[in-house]
Amino acid sequence: MNNAAIRETAVSAAKYAIERVLPEQAVKEALAGNIEGDIVLVAIGKAAWRMASAAYESLGSQIVRGCVITKDGYSMGPIGTLEIFEAAHPVPEQRNIDAARRAVSMVDGLTEKDTVLFLISGGGSALFELPPDGISLGDIAGMTSQLLACGANIVEINTLRKRVSSVKGGRFAQFCAPARVYSIVLSDVPGDRPDSIASGPAFPDSGTCGDALAVVRKYGLDLPQNILEKISVYETPKKLDNVVTRITGSGVVLCEAAQKFLTEKGFSVTLLTTTLDCEASEGGAFFAACACEAARTRKNRASSVAFIAGGEPVVKIKGGGKGGRCQEMALAAALGIQGLENAVFAAIGSDGTDGPTDAAGGVVDGGTARKILSAGLDPHAMLSGNDSYNALKAAGDLFITGPTGTNVNDLFLMLVE
Amino acid sequence: MNNAAIRETAVSAAKYAIERVLPEQAVKEALAGNIEGDIVLVAIGKAAWRMASAAYESLGSQIVRGCVITKDGYSMGPIGTLEIFEAAHPVPEQRNIDAARRAVSMVDGLTEKDTVLFLISGGGSALFELPPDGISLGDIAGMTSQLLACGANIVEINTLRKRVSSVKGGRFAQFCAPARVYSIVLSDVPGDRPDSIASGPAFPDSGTCGDALAVVRKYGLDLPQNILEKISVYETPKKLDNVVTRITGSGVVLCEAAQKFLTEKGFSVTLLTTTLDCEASEGGAFFAACACEAARTRKNRASSVAFIAGGEPVVKIKGGGKGGRCQEMALAAALGIQGLENAVFAAIGSDGTDGPTDAAGGVVDGGTARKILSAGLDPHAMLSGNDSYNALKAAGDLFITGPTGTNVNDLFLMLVE
Repeated sequence: MNNAAIRETAVSAAKYAIERVLPEQAVKEALAGNIEGDIVLVAIGKAAWRMASAAYESLGSQIVRGCVITKDGYSMGPIGTLEIFEAAHPVPEQRNIDAARRAVSMVDGLTEKDTVLFLISGGGSALFELPPDGISLGDIAGMTSQLLACGANIVEINTLRKRVSSVKGGRFAQFCAPARVYSIVLSDVPGDRPDSIASGPAFPDSGTCGDALAVVRKYGLDLPQNILEKISVYETPKKLDNVVTRITGSGVVLCEAAQKFLTEKGFSVTLLTTTLDCEASEGGAFFAACACEAARTRKNRASSVAFIAGGEPVVKIKGGGKGGRCQEMALAAALGIQGLENAVFAAIGSDGTDGPTDAAGGVVDGGTARKILSAGLDPHAMLSGNDSYNALKAAGDLFITGPTGTNVNDLFLMLVE
Repeated sequence: MNNAAIRETAVSAAKYAIERVLPEQAVKEALAGNIEGDIVLVAIGKAAWRMASAAYESLGSQIVRGCVITKDGYSMGPIGTLEIFEAAHPVPEQRNIDAARRAVSMVDGLTEKDTVLFLISGGGSALFELPPDGISLGDIAGMTSQLLACGANIVEINTLRKRVSSVKGGRFAQFCAPARVYSIVLSDVPGDRPDSIASGPAFPDSGTCGDALAVVRKYGLDLPQNILEKISVYETPKKLDNVVTRITGSGVVLCEAAQKFLTEKGFSVTLLTTTLDCEASEGGAFFAACACEAARTRKNRASSVAFIAGGEPVVKIKGGGKGGRCQEMALAAALGIQGLENAVFAAIGSDGTDGPTDAAGGVVDGGTARKILSAGLDPHAMLSGNDSYNALKAAGDLFITGPTGTNVNDLFLMLVE
């Protein structure tokens, strides 16, 4: 296999894997049994529209009302009588609150015979937000910015978010009671903890106020008094009797699909992990070291090798550049495999959006660093300045898909002939 | 296998691997052919005494004079007529210079019929030092401190060191000419680049003054004018006709020995890399993510799994704690595998000295973090403060061997039942 063929294989593997975790497929599987009685549908997250559309197709006649809250640009038109809201992501705005308040009003006054079909996907934490009294969106935004900048992982971020919200951490399910909640979760949290996905609006919270305060201490967060008070005392429900949860289309499925694809292509595949949570550029360096070893032992091998990981690495923001965790990981890997022949690394966000950019990630090889240098840019400095987008753009090694309609972690593939 | 058995296996695998790269073994292999004529022996590095001792045993009658320059405490007594010098490490002192000057005088006036048997091992960069005119040890020490603190890797560090030295970067071999130099290198540099090991006193330098200036820019080093001038213009030899180099006992041998041991114990082994160079704690997090995956898929596997890596990760110094890169990696991994059953991670410096501590590294498991907490300590804070030694000490999870007599990278083993 030459370099171009390996690049094509990496891209095909990623596309195949993402195909396997599209929302339609996930909802179809989860709705295999029947739901009786009237249904109120509430769908939140980046995949909300597609999940709702698939559910409406199956159960439209039972759905008495419902709403879809998704990210700007992610709605693809009307779905029956459902109310569709586009909301801001990743920083919530007033319209996010208005939409959440509408969802809460829709589940008000239901009986034990009714079901809330609650469809949850990634991005839900920001998109579905209703602050408690005394907390403003600005307070939450300030807290979220600090959490993103300090490199806190998604579980830590959500532990705090749950305590400044009236819908997260199981509280939305309390609004639905006494109605049953049938919750279908398209997982985007490494390890599939349903109390973390979208901050678990319909799942008992395993974290405590104590855990939240530990995060504050760990990163030395500087939070205003009203936020600190809520975090200290606004405890979440630990038990919810009216909820059934089905997790589907997870990051594990994503990685295993890539594994299947590459194995069938004749690669000797190692699935390292589905829960990678280290710093993105260091993860890229680790992958690069694996590639160098694979290149060194090339003459002793009968088949090409592939290393696969999934997860959600973190970026510690040091510079003012443009990028995302997948692009940063790809740029770091490109520096580590500089000069290697027939070695390709792909780092791709399954949602098609890596950080605040139009790229899903990057696909790099041994020539990427040289291409950046040839453009008169310094790839090391750009990595340090979190400017992975412009570095990869100069090399022509961005991976752009547009929104995929799903969101189940990132996928990392290192292929070496 | 229970936890105790896995810990014992990890320790046995590491000990077995280190045994395979002891200097005596390495020198014996490299001296398989004959050297004719008079020999001047010069041995530098942490393994210098043991390499010299093995060489003297084979060739003592031909050796007309020689010297051994090793670290304080690493000499084990007289060797024939050789002059033995103990010198300071990692920061050179005046006595290091005196010893290097003696070595240079010993190779003065030789003919083409003579051979300098030059035995090189890790630590040689600091131990074998002779600054050029206009540069003081203080200047070099200041530069080295900055390089260690900023997280530069060993190749980058040596690129600078070579340009403020009269013996590094191939210059010692120029002193030996016209005598032949037979150089046996016990490698401690990931990837075995002989111009990097001990800063390559007898190997053509592949780096340039331009590369050195790039390192200065990359880390924003603040260097005095006399150092900057040398770095800019004091170019190293790119070709040496009088040198034969044999690389032996490398980090690759270390990792492959561990691989052999664990394979024979029935583990399914993946040798990830022999050149890991990422940030230590992030590398530990990566290994932990692999362990979590291995634990998740435990029920689907017939055999236990092991992931092996070798290399030289870097530590970015943020706090004032005590530790080393292996201990930091072990502590980070311990946090990542907290609560996992029958998963053990060992991070061990093959020289027996990890950072400025009496430990070679650490051996941690799913209970390590809890043990640190039980001692009233905060393992997260200690990791952030580079205080891995005291954290692992509290858990009883330090790995202490004393000096092993060799130095060929670190060894990392993650074992999961």
